[in-house]
Amino acid sequence: MDGPASTKSASRRSFLKGALTGGAAIAASTALVGRAGAQSDPLVTDIQDWNRYLGEGVDARPYGTPSQFEEHVVRRNVAWLTSDPISSVNFTPLHELEGIITPNGLCFERHHAGIAEIAPADHRLMINGLVDQPLIFTMDDLKRFPRENKVYFLECAANSGMEWRGAQLNGCQYTHGMVHCVMYTGVSLRTILEEAGVKANGSWLLAEGADASAMTRSIPMEKALDDCMVAFAMNGEALRPEQGYPLRLVVPGWEGNMWVKWLRRLEVGDQPWHHREETSKYTDLLSNGKARRFTWVMEVKSVITNPSPQAPIKHGRGHTVLSGLAWSGNGTIKRVDVTTDGGRNWHQARIDGPSLPMALHRFYYEFDWDGSELFLQSRAIDDKGFVQPTKDELRTARGPNSIYHNNGIQTWHVDSDGVIENVEIS
Amino acid sequence: MDGPASTKSASRRSFLKGALTGGAAIAASTALVGRAGAQSDPLVTDIQDWNRYLGEGVDARPYGTPSQFEEHVVRRNVAWLTSDPISSVNFTPLHELEGIITPNGLCFERHHAGIAEIAPADHRLMINGLVDQPLIFTMDDLKRFPRENKVYFLECAANSGMEWRGAQLNGCQYTHGMVHCVMYTGVSLRTILEEAGVKANGSWLLAEGADASAMTRSIPMEKALDDCMVAFAMNGEALRPEQGYPLRLVVPGWEGNMWVKWLRRLEVGDQPWHHREETSKYTDLLSNGKARRFTWVMEVKSVITNPSPQAPIKHGRGHTVLSGLAWSGNGTIKRVDVTTDGGRNWHQARIDGPSLPMALHRFYYEFDWDGSELFLQSRAIDDKGFVQPTKDELRTARGPNSIYHNNGIQTWHVDSDGVIENVEIS
Repeated sequence: MDGPASTKSASRRSFLKGALTGGAAIAASTALVGRAGAQSDPLVTDIQDWNRYLGEGVDARPYGTPSQFEEHVVRRNVAWLTSDPISSVNFTPLHELEGIITPNGLCFERHHAGIAEIAPADHRLMINGLVDQPLIFTMDDLKRFPRENKVYFLECAANSGMEWRGAQLNGCQYTHGMVHCVMYTGVSLRTILEEAGVKANGSWLLAEGADASAMTRSIPMEKALDDCMVAFAMNGEALRPEQGYPLRLVVPGWEGNMWVKWLRRLEVGDQPWHHREETSKYTDLLSNGKARRFTWVMEVKSVITNPSPQAPIKHGRGHTVLSGLAWSGNGTIKRVDVTTDGGRNWHQARIDGPSLPMALHRFYYEFDWDGSELFLQSRAIDDKGFVQPTKDELRTARGPNSIYHNNGIQTWHVDSDGVIENVEIS
Repeated sequence: MDGPASTKSASRRSFLKGALTGGAAIAASTALVGRAGAQSDPLVTDIQDWNRYLGEGVDARPYGTPSQFEEHVVRRNVAWLTSDPISSVNFTPLHELEGIITPNGLCFERHHAGIAEIAPADHRLMINGLVDQPLIFTMDDLKRFPRENKVYFLECAANSGMEWRGAQLNGCQYTHGMVHCVMYTGVSLRTILEEAGVKANGSWLLAEGADASAMTRSIPMEKALDDCMVAFAMNGEALRPEQGYPLRLVVPGWEGNMWVKWLRRLEVGDQPWHHREETSKYTDLLSNGKARRFTWVMEVKSVITNPSPQAPIKHGRGHTVLSGLAWSGNGTIKRVDVTTDGGRNWHQARIDGPSLPMALHRFYYEFDWDGSELFLQSRAIDDKGFVQPTKDELRTARGPNSIYHNNGIQTWHVDSDGVIENVEIS
């Protein structure tokens, strides 16, 4: 087979030799064979333990676990945030993750009464209210309906909620970590409702969970019949207990607490129920004392996940990769722009991988860092034309007590040592 | 908000009331509220423990694990298959999985010297041979190159290998379980090779692993420069140790053992190396005594995963969902057909979810089972027009000693009790 022409063309930008901007190259740690440094690097010249000794076999782990060297990649909770861990939240370690799929064991949790432990054989899904035929399903029943597979992000409406008051928490795991994205498998809610037959005056749906907090949310029938799903699998396997095993509701692009876990009942009615988790909570208090309610859609949002406060830049000057996530409850992400100077200059980022509606999108921006102070920001635009706002624009529109739906632009300050801090700038 | 018209239209097929073929409905286990059965079902009428007691909190599992009720969903190995578990294989529990993403902990393993345990800070990737500039990279170096995210299946060439001799193993986990599919994150191999500069006569690449078996495979430069990747993440997190942590090669659509784990070296040469794992092994012995070598592409293939021998039909007659997987190393799956009578009648299956090149595809076929004996098969066609062959067609073409690349059609026999067995029929 003839070899191709040398791939080292003059016009190809070499990361070692330096970028078009003339900044430093990836110099320090890339050793060349033949250089004195490499020849004396025992990791290159000597036989290592793993080169010579047998490892564990195929019977060691019927269900695999991460490397011991990844034990820092975990969900984290903030002890002072809530009075106890039962009605509380933990956060996805976004700064450590890649791509658009969140591994099941790292999906953030938000519970009101802790994790319900339900044997699937004992679980029932009831449909009642304004239906032609009330029904009760077992899990085996549900698996006999047509199945579908969809990748969706789930974001808690309170994600970034602490940040309304300013730059509070030092890490994107904490500022943005109440979001995850997996492939769900389940049955369309429309199919289930059609089985019961929604009466002509049935215009609202109440979804209720089986845990001790019995979470309930009202969902307009138009959405329920559109793209909602009752799901029993995530990333190919059964839901995790903390994600609602054996059954949860999926409400694509909408507030996380509508995705009721441990789903046990769907009631059809002719008006919303105005329960606690959509009145006292999950409404947006405005400056005039009124509150916006039923703000269902999780709006367009983005954040640079790495580097970030928990992931400082350690390689010094030179070629630097910024990695981040963008998403919108309105559809796909059309474009992400990134700035390294606090908004004076914006550059288009590269979106990589599948672009799926109401799923996470991964973006990258690369540049040569000269070691100077930076103010990193990302700004997303979705396919409906919505542009991610600044936090100041949000505060102007909604006042200082909004709590939920903070999709404002995030700023990270980078100092010359690569140490990163959560800041706000005007 | 006005309610929509009743969703129970006369023309909508109801799963409860029976299918168009007039078969039985989903009757037995779907109880109607108001029926005596439901009213006396304590799982419906009584308050359950999980309704009343608090569960574990958000600090319980920094890294989550599956429900205790899913402990049967595991990789399994077959003790008699190899003389020890160190150089052996285990199998993905396909019959239990949904969608197209394989959860990281359930991806099959195939090792030759067990699992290498490598601290990422100690890992090096060398590029040498016919290159302008030999290089050594650390993991941190690799993360400064442009990153990409791709969903690919990985199938061992020996998947279904036992089945050349006939219907041997009773379960799709064993007959087809040396396959998985995840989203990989890494750097394109082309980028890495361009950094070193492939010389004009560099036409082959040797990939070498750092474990004690030091797996090596020769890869033609055209493929290496096309779509290969050096990957460090799977489904968003670092590779699992058993999948090559911290680095593996990704060779989309091609034989699994080319996807060298614990990747430590890439050598450019002007001819293939003809090492053990591409001569003594991983060649296809034909009837005439010659062997086909370099049969790199994993051809179009499919299998019904559920029901299957490990997942018998338990609901009796009525509406039945067949679920399965299809894939091709040539691209996407264009079509899957299913038969329940051993090939007398074929029906087009529904492919659901994203259709990505060289990734798993999920298909479904639904029918009303009347309780009679069935012979289930699936047959896939890829977007290049290749049609999945029968096992007899393969044996005619290659003889009985081929071992690898068995992509033949799989038959499951279903008896009237829903018990399922691996069979062959002419």
